[in-house]
Amino acid sequence: MPPPLNASIELRVRYAETDQMGFVYHANYLVWCDMGRTELIRRVWRPYAELEREGLLLAVTDASLRYLQPARFDDLVRIETTLEAVRSRAVSFTYDVVRVGEDGSTRRLATARTDLMALDPSGATRTLPREMVQAFREAKAAREAGA
Amino acid sequence: MPPPLNASIELRVRYAETDQMGFVYHANYLVWCDMGRTELIRRVWRPYAELEREGLLLAVTDASLRYLQPARFDDLVRIETTLEAVRSRAVSFTYDVVRVGEDGSTRRLATARTDLMALDPSGATRTLPREMVQAFREAKAAREAGA
Amino acid sequence: MPPPLNASIELRVRYAETDQMGFVYHANYLVWCDMGRTELIRRVWRPYAELEREGLLLAVTDASLRYLQPARFDDLVRIETTLEAVRSRAVSFTYDVVRVGEDGSTRRLATARTDLMALDPSGATRTLPREMVQAFREAKAAREAGA
Amino acid sequence: MPPPLNASIELRVRYAETDQMGFVYHANYLVWCDMGRTELIRRVWRPYAELEREGLLLAVTDASLRYLQPARFDDLVRIETTLEAVRSRAVSFTYDVVRVGEDGSTRRLATARTDLMALDPSGATRTLPREMVQAFREAKAAREAGA
Repeated sequence: MPPPLNASIELRVRYAETDQMGFVYHANYLVWCDMGRTELIRRVWRPYAELEREGLLLAVTDASLRYLQPARFDDLVRIETTLEAVRSRAVSFTYDVVRVGEDGSTRRLATARTDLMALDPSGATRTLPREMVQAFREAKAAREAGA
Repeated sequence: MPPPLNASIELRVRYAETDQMGFVYHANYLVWCDMGRTELIRRVWRPYAELEREGLLLAVTDASLRYLQPARFDDLVRIETTLEAVRSRAVSFTYDVVRVGEDGSTRRLATARTDLMALDPSGATRTLPREMVQAFREAKAAREAGA
Repeated sequence: MPPPLNASIELRVRYAETDQMGFVYHANYLVWCDMGRTELIRRVWRPYAELEREGLLLAVTDASLRYLQPARFDDLVRIETTLEAVRSRAVSFTYDVVRVGEDGSTRRLATARTDLMALDPSGATRTLPREMVQAFREAKAAREAGA
Repeated sequence: MPPPLNASIELRVRYAETDQMGFVYHANYLVWCDMGRTELIRRVWRPYAELEREGLLLAVTDASLRYLQPARFDDLVRIETTLEAVRSRAVSFTYDVVRVGEDGSTRRLATARTDLMALDPSGATRTLPREMVQAFREAKAAREAGA
């Protein structure tokens, strides 16, 4: 059976996430992307918290974001995370951040991409576990076949 | 020579620290208090970063804050930290948070207190180093004698 | 029919909420309490976002927290918020922060209390809407009768 | 006399900015960039806080970051901000984030770029004040001539 194909999480915007412009402060979208890929990693492979306890850290090396529409306090926001690429020591994700209206309609707020590198606890680069790379590749292939 | 008697730091309010009410979000005052006591510990004893590397963690067990006036973006804020009490396994600080006007006048924004407990890296309680307790007691005595 | 008696929310600890001690940074508990009371206000009265749009701001004037056990990344945390007191211009809440284990068992992580004051958009104190005070009092009475 | 050519700020890494990996959480670099450009805008033109009060908001539309070396708690970090481009409704900045050692040596931690768009308080796009565009262009020309 193929692993799950994607990961979608929903959250309600916290008051703490707003700034005096009345919108969500832009740095918080990186936090939301982090939550999105944590969920994807959990579904495709295993909880990231366990990976860290076993000595695999994933550190962000590159991030880019495009902000299209502001998010506001108490908005229901959905983060859709896609596995974009996996290599022996690195993995890339893309994100769609959308607002979900009370009627279920959606509006795209932002898109983003992050690249992450595998580190050991000393901070040196290391390879991803082979089974993890395989699970990610299967998930990616299944998503592309199914889409 | 007695150790330094107190610690005062200044910071400019970051845009990220505001919320949609137009004020600094209230949780950020705990971050400022943390910065204040980090500076006090550095002056009275040694950098807290070194203490952690040597296995001494200080974890907050109690915190209380009173908010009097809001802080706003780009305000110059001063945090005055006072060592309130030191015991073999715990230490308490109080804080005055004041806004410094362009003319040097000050206005109190908040007061706070935090109690911290000494932990080892496993999370178990431990005693503070005896020399640290002594340095803190001397600083406290010198402050009280001088004030 | 009496209004809802309490409010309980659950959240998963975000990586961004941890610090280098490996625990949730202590200031973040105030953010969680904010989320808890936002939900209580929504259930007992109306969404706080609407209240702000209509000119009622609730600003924290006092906060106190007791930290009992650390929360960690990916923990499932429940915030139980209780309406403690309501006056014409102020309202107080207490909070229980508990970790929910995989088997449904719970462990208390922290308790907290916050007092809030009603402000108008200019920052001046104002009274709470009479119907809101009444709804809060009925909720409080119902909870106390039912408990 | 030409306006100042660049803006450099220094900060000490806050404990709150670390995560359980022991490094600064990656989203915080966007906060530091924000602080850097706030200082550049202050020097080249006027305090951003005043601009907002007069109805000019600058909202981030694009952000990209490359992380090279981790920052740690208590590190002294310098943010060097460069005005990259100014148009009638938008302005772009680039950033160098460097760690400053105790001996004054520096090591680059990250580079970043953000694009910002001018909004009025209703959230509609607007033009930048002509004098501001001119001041920015002069600063940019002076920097390029001088470098």
